[in-house]
Amino acid sequence: MSKVAVLGAGSWGTALSIVLADNGHDVRLWTHRKEQAENINKNSKNEKYLDVMIPEGIRAYHDLEAAIADVTAIIIVVPTKAIREVCKQLNNILTHTPTIIHASKGIEPVSLKRVSEQISEEMESYSYEDIVVLSGPSHAEEVGLRQPTTVTVSSIDLTKAEIAQDLFINKSFRVYTSPDIIGIELGGALKNIIALGAGISDGLGFGDNAKAALITRGLAEIARLGTTLGANPLSFLGLPGVGDLIVTCTSVHSRNWRAGNLLGKGNKLEDVLEQMGMVVEGVRTVKAAYQFAEEQQVEMPITTGIYQILFEEKDPKDVVEQLMNRTKREEMDDLAKLLS
Amino acid sequence: MSKVAVLGAGSWGTALSIVLADNGHDVRLWTHRKEQAENINKNSKNEKYLDVMIPEGIRAYHDLEAAIADVTAIIIVVPTKAIREVCKQLNNILTHTPTIIHASKGIEPVSLKRVSEQISEEMESYSYEDIVVLSGPSHAEEVGLRQPTTVTVSSIDLTKAEIAQDLFINKSFRVYTSPDIIGIELGGALKNIIALGAGISDGLGFGDNAKAALITRGLAEIARLGTTLGANPLSFLGLPGVGDLIVTCTSVHSRNWRAGNLLGKGNKLEDVLEQMGMVVEGVRTVKAAYQFAEEQQVEMPITTGIYQILFEEKDPKDVVEQLMNRTKREEMDDLAKLLS
Repeated sequence: MSKVAVLGAGSWGTALSIVLADNGHDVRLWTHRKEQAENINKNSKNEKYLDVMIPEGIRAYHDLEAAIADVTAIIIVVPTKAIREVCKQLNNILTHTPTIIHASKGIEPVSLKRVSEQISEEMESYSYEDIVVLSGPSHAEEVGLRQPTTVTVSSIDLTKAEIAQDLFINKSFRVYTSPDIIGIELGGALKNIIALGAGISDGLGFGDNAKAALITRGLAEIARLGTTLGANPLSFLGLPGVGDLIVTCTSVHSRNWRAGNLLGKGNKLEDVLEQMGMVVEGVRTVKAAYQFAEEQQVEMPITTGIYQILFEEKDPKDVVEQLMNRTKREEMDDLAKLLS
Repeated sequence: MSKVAVLGAGSWGTALSIVLADNGHDVRLWTHRKEQAENINKNSKNEKYLDVMIPEGIRAYHDLEAAIADVTAIIIVVPTKAIREVCKQLNNILTHTPTIIHASKGIEPVSLKRVSEQISEEMESYSYEDIVVLSGPSHAEEVGLRQPTTVTVSSIDLTKAEIAQDLFINKSFRVYTSPDIIGIELGGALKNIIALGAGISDGLGFGDNAKAALITRGLAEIARLGTTLGANPLSFLGLPGVGDLIVTCTSVHSRNWRAGNLLGKGNKLEDVLEQMGMVVEGVRTVKAAYQFAEEQQVEMPITTGIYQILFEEKDPKDVVEQLMNRTKREEMDDLAKLLS
């Protein structure tokens, strides 16, 4: 049994806290909103985010210093844009070096850095090799209900990933390890591009055949980019790749799918974002990936097509037609190139 | 423009005929039921199978000899169990050697032979190298509506696959080629095992996380078996692998998914099959794959679990629990082994 701090009391942070509490750990769930912390402790509920009872092993905190005192591990689950700020605060108050695990999906705009890179840059006592990522196909709602779920943890220093594995693994939450942190982080971020595409396809009224083709070809495409950036292509075929892609592209709960769906129905990007009133990570990721692809001269027809729909007001129907009419070729070529 | 015979006027045979007619070919659609042929020609409809207008370029035949006279290609789309019988008839009447393409998914029980092997065994003027397979994520209904669809064609003699590609490719039907006929045929057949598993998971009331994990791990498993049988593992990552798997596992229209769903809800196999009143290819495929796996000593925990549910009356809940509690391990191990 360990003391563990979970930073970020959204739906995913709450779900991960429940897994840890089920495993007998003493969990401190931190939120920057005082009222939310008080409500969780008073009502054993985190109503806006996850509709389940909060177990006794979890205590909510508003004071970050109190939350992290004496913990053996810190789980960072804040929104991507808050990562650096929270790490700066941690850096100022930490007097010991607990294991740091993050479960946020996204790439920083402009710098194009992954979350583990951002964390290690902000925290003096940690190097990039120390940071662990946790990712995989996982709706928080289902984890809260203890439904079977599988995820992957990864860090350059594999012993750190194994610490994370031991903390989280239980009967309904199966945890694999992987040495490929680049692939695991990029898989989680880039799959949102394909989720946007799947939404666009559905919004245009196309069927399952088109969506399956898009997901399959999209997978090859993000694997191609990921490989250029140092990932092991096999990672894209595992749980944080194919697995997460399937969950995100076939669920109407996915924010990225919903945004794509509205675009496919003919709405403009600014109207879609206004209508949704939430950050759609995939939109920023398309921009970043397109930038990468141009710089590195990686062929990414699906990402390029989605970029044109998002930022150049190209008609989604024309983009699909253009994708369908590329020269005929051997399918295996792409994959073989990837793995050679 | 070519003369082409399509043998088998079910929904998939009809859909493929429409693609060929759209491309300007003269299509002879053969069925062994005289009344069905007459109705198609009279009403330009094949109502029981596909709810679209049959274009002018298609003429239905009941006389096999007339249907195949002077054609440059024959597309075989009869049910798997009728393959040998139809090929025997063809062998007796063919006086020239048109290209033979098949689009049937399944493995022959006991002999465990693929469809291309069965065809070449029955036809004196053809060797195994000549036969082409067409497979991919494709609901016939969507192809009939000209919705975007992608498939793969494959044969040992690549020029034959290219003939098939040229016959079928058009604006809404994109055709890739692959040299790996073993992988393409096995991908189409083995994916039905995982579709049964996805149905069982949904029938038990588990969520998207569990299903995504099952599909992802199942993919690694069928790729492992396929590789042992001579397939290129990359084929399982393409359209006839991942792509077809996604279409089959996430659609309530899939017969295999529906059978699994009923099993997960506690029904026994014989009751499920009686209730469905149709052949469920996956059930036979599970038996064949289990047999293969035992003989070749390939580790297939998901297939084994489904086999136990189907044929040993094991409780589906216990099987899932057993799958979730296997020793923790590195996820990449499996995939790396595959591709090494």
